[in-house]
Amino acid sequence: MSARRRLIVVSNRGPVTYDRDDEGRRIERRGGGGLVTALRGLLEHHDVTWIASATTEEDRVVAVESGGRGEVVLVAHDPVAYDRYYNVIANPLLWFIQHELWGLALRPNIDRFVHEAWDEGYVAVNRAFADAVVACLDDKPDALVFFHDYQLYLAPRMVRDARPDAALAHFVHIPWPADWSVLPPEMRDAIHDGLLANDVVAFHTERWARNFRADCGDLGYTQVTHHPISIDVEEFDELRESEAVRERERVLEAERPERLVVRVDRTDPSKNIVRGFTAFGLFLEEHPEWHRRVSMLALLDPSRQKVPEYVEYLAAVEREAAAVNERFGSDGWLPVDLRVADDFARSVAAYKQFDVLLVNAVYDGMNLVAKEAPLVNGRAGVLVLSENAGAHEELGEWALTVNPFDVAGQADAIHRALTMDEAERRRRSEAIQAQVRANDVRAWISGLLADFDRASRNVHA
Amino acid sequence: MSARRRLIVVSNRGPVTYDRDDEGRRIERRGGGGLVTALRGLLEHHDVTWIASATTEEDRVVAVESGGRGEVVLVAHDPVAYDRYYNVIANPLLWFIQHELWGLALRPNIDRFVHEAWDEGYVAVNRAFADAVVACLDDKPDALVFFHDYQLYLAPRMVRDARPDAALAHFVHIPWPADWSVLPPEMRDAIHDGLLANDVVAFHTERWARNFRADCGDLGYTQVTHHPISIDVEEFDELRESEAVRERERVLEAERPERLVVRVDRTDPSKNIVRGFTAFGLFLEEHPEWHRRVSMLALLDPSRQKVPEYVEYLAAVEREAAAVNERFGSDGWLPVDLRVADDFARSVAAYKQFDVLLVNAVYDGMNLVAKEAPLVNGRAGVLVLSENAGAHEELGEWALTVNPFDVAGQADAIHRALTMDEAERRRRSEAIQAQVRANDVRAWISGLLADFDRASRNVHA
Repeated sequence: MSARRRLIVVSNRGPVTYDRDDEGRRIERRGGGGLVTALRGLLEHHDVTWIASATTEEDRVVAVESGGRGEVVLVAHDPVAYDRYYNVIANPLLWFIQHELWGLALRPNIDRFVHEAWDEGYVAVNRAFADAVVACLDDKPDALVFFHDYQLYLAPRMVRDARPDAALAHFVHIPWPADWSVLPPEMRDAIHDGLLANDVVAFHTERWARNFRADCGDLGYTQVTHHPISIDVEEFDELRESEAVRERERVLEAERPERLVVRVDRTDPSKNIVRGFTAFGLFLEEHPEWHRRVSMLALLDPSRQKVPEYVEYLAAVEREAAAVNERFGSDGWLPVDLRVADDFARSVAAYKQFDVLLVNAVYDGMNLVAKEAPLVNGRAGVLVLSENAGAHEELGEWALTVNPFDVAGQADAIHRALTMDEAERRRRSEAIQAQVRANDVRAWISGLLADFDRASRNVHA
Repeated sequence: MSARRRLIVVSNRGPVTYDRDDEGRRIERRGGGGLVTALRGLLEHHDVTWIASATTEEDRVVAVESGGRGEVVLVAHDPVAYDRYYNVIANPLLWFIQHELWGLALRPNIDRFVHEAWDEGYVAVNRAFADAVVACLDDKPDALVFFHDYQLYLAPRMVRDARPDAALAHFVHIPWPADWSVLPPEMRDAIHDGLLANDVVAFHTERWARNFRADCGDLGYTQVTHHPISIDVEEFDELRESEAVRERERVLEAERPERLVVRVDRTDPSKNIVRGFTAFGLFLEEHPEWHRRVSMLALLDPSRQKVPEYVEYLAAVEREAAAVNERFGSDGWLPVDLRVADDFARSVAAYKQFDVLLVNAVYDGMNLVAKEAPLVNGRAGVLVLSENAGAHEELGEWALTVNPFDVAGQADAIHRALTMDEAERRRRSEAIQAQVRANDVRAWISGLLADFDRASRNVHA
C-alpha cells in the first residue's frame, strides 16, 4: 500500500447510515454494496473524508449536526430533487442506457417530466455534492477528490470551475456503452463534459474504457484507465467459516438435490434472470435424464422497487420461474427454487454449494458474484459467464462463455458444466481462485492510486 | 456517367416481379422501394444482370423457365427456408439490432428456433444467392458483383471462396450500430467475415462507416466508403405534375386546416411514429392557440405484418393516434389524421402540401422522405429531422434537429416550425432543394463506381 494520502471520496451511498432504535437512540449501520466494501481499505490507510447523500431521517439530523465536517459528510438534499435524481434520471434512465435495456421503439419517453427531473433533480443534486466538495477542499486544499459512478457525472465540472487546480478522479462502475445517442444532446454533452473535467476517468475493463475514448474523441488532459474492481479475499475467507454461513449451509445441504445450479443477483433487468430460467427450462426439456437430479437455486435481492421497470421485471422473473416449475416440477422436486430476499449469509452458503454458477448478465460493469462465489466454493463448481460481464475480461478463459441473449447457448453451457469431468472442473476452478487471490481489492486501489500519481505529475510537469 | 460496365446486382427484391391476371396471362410489375428506383439508372447505362428472390408463384415459374439466365435472374428458394431467412433472421432480428430496437432485458430470445432459422434459413438462402452469382460469373467472369443490404451478409464470402479473383462490393442501406454484441459470436463473426470478403463495403453516411470500421478493427483489403443514396429528381419533378398526384392534392387542399404537419412512413418501429403523435399531443396541450388550426396527417404504408413485433407496433400507433384525438379532437377537427394504406400518389400530394414535415426516426440508414418531400413542396415547409437519420449528415444544417427520444424537444420543434417567419422557412427550404438537386441518385451511383475502380486498381496493382 502506498503512502498515506488526503482523499475526498464522493459517492451517492456512504460507508455508514444512521437510524434510531426503538428507544430513540442513534444507531450506526455499515453501508452495503461492493463499492463501500471496496473503498473500506482506503479508510484504513489514508486520511479520507467521505461525502455521500443522507438517505434516512437520522442521516439528515447528522448532516445538520456535523455542519459538513468530519470523516463522513452527509449531504441532505431536497427530497423531491433527490427522488427525481435517483428514481427518474439515475434509475432507470442512465442505468438503462448504460446497460442497453431500452427497447427504443417506445421507450424512453423523454418528456417534460424527465427534462424537469434532469434540471431540478440530477443537476441540483450534483450541484449540492459539488458544493460539499468545494467546502471540503477549503479545509484540505491538496486532497484528491475521487468521484464514483453514474449518479455524479456532472459534479466534477462544477468543482473544476470553482477550483481549477483541484485533483479530480472518477470511477465509473457500470458499463460504458458505445452509443449515447438515446440522450438529448444537452444531457449527453453535459455528462461527457462533466467526466472530462477529471484528471483521471477509470473503468473496470479495457472494453468500457475503449468505448469511452471512442465516444469522447478529444480527451483533453483527461487520462482514461481501467482497473477491475475486486473483493476483499480475507473477508470472504472469514465469512466462509462464519457461524451464520455454516448454519445456512447445513439447511442447504439437507435440501439440495444431487447437483445445484446457483445464481445470486439483485432483481435488476440487466442481470438477465428471466432468460436464465428459460435456458434452464430448455435444458430440462432436452435432458430428461437430469430431471429430479438438479435444481436452479436463485437467490435474488429485491432492487429499486420504486421504479416501475423494476417492479415489472420482478413480476416477469416470478412468472418465468413458475412456468418452468409448472412444466417440469413434480412431488418433491422444484426445478427453480426462487428466493427473493436480502440474506447475504445464505448467498455465501450457496456460493460454497454450487456445481454450476450462472452469471449471464445482459451487461454488467464487473459482477462481483463471479469472483466471490468461485473463491469460497468447495465443489470445483463451474462458472458459466456472460461475455458482456466485465469479469469476463479477467476470468473468461476459465469459464464457459455464453452470449446473454442466446438461451440455447446457455442451455448447452449448463449441460456441459454438469457433465464436465472433475479434473477439468478443478483446473478451471483453481485458476479462477488464484486469479481472484492475486488481484483482490487492494490491487484495484493500488492501481488507481498509481494512475492518480502519474496524472498529477503530468498536470504539474 | 462513366463507361459501360458489366455488373451483377444482387438484392433480395428485384426490379420486376411477375403475376397472372384474371385471364391467366403473365403480367410484369415494376418492383417498389428506394433501392430499385436508385439502381434503375444502372440498368439504363450498363450491362446488368440482376439476381433477386422469386417472391410470387409466377416468379418461381419464370425462375425455372429462364434457367438462371437473362437480365433478371430470379432465385426460387425453398419456401420454409425463405420464411425463416426473411421473417425470423432479417426481420426482426437483424433489422432490430441495426436500428437498436430490442429492449434487451427480455428480447430477443435466441432459442433453438432462431438458431435453426439461421442455419437452415439465412445461411441457406445466402448460399442459393451465392450459387446464382457464381453461375452468372461463369458467363461474365469480369463483371463486378454488387450486393445489397442486410439480407445478404454471408453471400460475399461464399462467392469469394468459389471465385477468389471476383470483384465484389456491398452496399448496406441501414444503420451500422456501434454494438453487435446482441448476436451470438458465431453469427456476428459470420456477418463480419461475409462483409469483409468484399473489395468495397459502402454505407450512406460517415457515421455508419465509422461504426463499421471501429467494429471490424482489421479491415484486411476491404475499402470502407460512404455515399448518401438519393432520389431521381426528374422523376419527382414529373410526379409532382402528374394527374394522379394533382387529383389527390385537390382533395387534400379541400380538407386541410390552416397548417399541416405531415409524416410519411412505413409502419416500422424504427420510424418512431408513436412518439411523433405523443409529441404532437404535447404541443397541442401546451399551445391551445393552435387548436383547430393544425392537424398532423400521417400516411403510413403497412409493413411486414407477418412479423409479430410489427403487428404490435401498428396497434400501438393506432392507440396513440386515438388517444390524442380523444383528448383534443372536436367536431370537424381531427388532430391526428391517420391513414394506413399504400398510396404513393397521395404521399406526393402531401409532400406538396406540408407546412411541417416530421421525420423523427429512432434510427434510419438514410430516409428518402426527407429528400423527396422538400423537393416537391410548394409552401416553404419546414423539415423537422432526427439526428439519427442518415439524411441528417446532408440536410441537418437546414432542418430543425430533434433527438428521437425527446418528445418534449419534438413538441418544441413543431411549435418553432409553425411559427417560423416565411423568409427563414424559404431560405432553409431552398437550401435543401438545392442540395438534393445537386446530389441526386446519379451522384450516388457515380461515387460508388469510382470507389469500385479505385479498389480494383489497388487489388490489381
